[in-house]
Amino acid sequence: METPIYQLEFKVRDYECDLQGIVNNANYQHYYEHTRHEFLLEHAVGFDEMHQQGIDFVVARVEINFKTPLHSKDTFLSTLNLHHDGIRYCFHQKIYRLPDMKLCNIAHVDCVILDNGKLVPNCPIVDELMVSLQK
Amino acid sequence: METPIYQLEFKVRDYECDLQGIVNNANYQHYYEHTRHEFLLEHAVGFDEMHQQGIDFVVARVEINFKTPLHSKDTFLSTLNLHHDGIRYCFHQKIYRLPDMKLCNIAHVDCVILDNGKLVPNCPIVDELMVSLQK
Amino acid sequence: METPIYQLEFKVRDYECDLQGIVNNANYQHYYEHTRHEFLLEHAVGFDEMHQQGIDFVVARVEINFKTPLHSKDTFLSTLNLHHDGIRYCFHQKIYRLPDMKLCNIAHVDCVILDNGKLVPNCPIVDELMVSLQK
Amino acid sequence: METPIYQLEFKVRDYECDLQGIVNNANYQHYYEHTRHEFLLEHAVGFDEMHQQGIDFVVARVEINFKTPLHSKDTFLSTLNLHHDGIRYCFHQKIYRLPDMKLCNIAHVDCVILDNGKLVPNCPIVDELMVSLQK
Repeated sequence: METPIYQLEFKVRDYECDLQGIVNNANYQHYYEHTRHEFLLEHAVGFDEMHQQGIDFVVARVEINFKTPLHSKDTFLSTLNLHHDGIRYCFHQKIYRLPDMKLCNIAHVDCVILDNGKLVPNCPIVDELMVSLQK
Repeated sequence: METPIYQLEFKVRDYECDLQGIVNNANYQHYYEHTRHEFLLEHAVGFDEMHQQGIDFVVARVEINFKTPLHSKDTFLSTLNLHHDGIRYCFHQKIYRLPDMKLCNIAHVDCVILDNGKLVPNCPIVDELMVSLQK
Repeated sequence: METPIYQLEFKVRDYECDLQGIVNNANYQHYYEHTRHEFLLEHAVGFDEMHQQGIDFVVARVEINFKTPLHSKDTFLSTLNLHHDGIRYCFHQKIYRLPDMKLCNIAHVDCVILDNGKLVPNCPIVDELMVSLQK
Repeated sequence: METPIYQLEFKVRDYECDLQGIVNNANYQHYYEHTRHEFLLEHAVGFDEMHQQGIDFVVARVEINFKTPLHSKDTFLSTLNLHHDGIRYCFHQKIYRLPDMKLCNIAHVDCVILDNGKLVPNCPIVDELMVSLQK
């Protein structure tokens, strides 16, 4: 298993659970998005500031495989890895229930960069960040 | 009972229900917000276009009295009245379950107008709209 | 292109848009879920009633390819097809912007059936529904 | 100012912000709900376990006064006080932006207790909790 370059701890909030008593699927996209944004922010890349400068990180594709549902009161760890493949920044993300580290689900999220609405191949500030992480 | 100047029909979506099996309270604010925006839009006042022009409708106060919860599969009617009181646009809103018209909850939502972040006493386009409705 | 067996019209609600001014990605999972539930409901299969009988439709995998974002005020059509593959009910879903029918995104959502928490190969009521649709 | 009996720190998540670039109003109800549930949980009162035993905490009335909006990246403190008034458990809640402790909004949330769907005057486990807090 690849060592994650970033991880963030969460706790399930009851409003995220649906009438089946488990976290509604769409909320995992929220957890994964928040993890990506916090990761970028830790490296001084602000999602809203980039947007104000005309640079948007846009999700092109998301795939989530669900293994074990999360319930009310669960805490969990959201981990992240990142690769650059062509014009896509590919985030490999996982959610593990705490404290038993049971794998809950796995996501592959591909993002592309829009510069004032036009697709561009890369985002220099994110590339620098990736180089610095490889050292 | 005052005749509403606008009404909109909705259907509960399952993801809006929480683990109690009823619509989560916060979603009523969503229903009421969407009703206000659709009302304004019907009179050619677009919430996002106003925002792009620096004019923001901002909620200053919301009060909701909950009478009867909505469940999965329920359809309902969301009604609206509007008064201007000082610098506040006061929306009186109600949600009735269909088809029995059982009153589910009642909201008072006071909005103020920000022009490039500064509080202003009124929004001319909304005032015109209100005059036209009184005819 | 395969003819969809079900379709449902929606309108974007402003609270579904994020600070980029477009519909937040997670909301597409909501749109797709609501479309599946409405489809089942039209064939007298209620998601909450199944849950009360111990039968849960659970998403095992979701893949969404995003082409064109939806904005405030957009209306759109959500279409659905369904196949049974092993123990998975595979929903092929698409969202088209109206009225120009521009393809916004494509989803593959695989569901499995839990009977009182245990994985079972099929759900008789859904199988009957699928047979009836093929006639 | 009354000293809060409970407080919880949060960070704004970008998906909670709307196209105005500020936290959407409905999310404050989510923050306040999560604060109430965490407070109860700290005293061994689980919202979902109560529900499974037929006891539901239901919001009867919510009033929120909005002073200052929260933005992307803000952290904030959510505080809580609780009084029992007739059949209502009245939560007095506030949200302060960190680190400057600017008051963002104030909520009064009245909850009632349903025992298998019937209104009851009190919940013994919560009453015990309140007595223990006064010592």
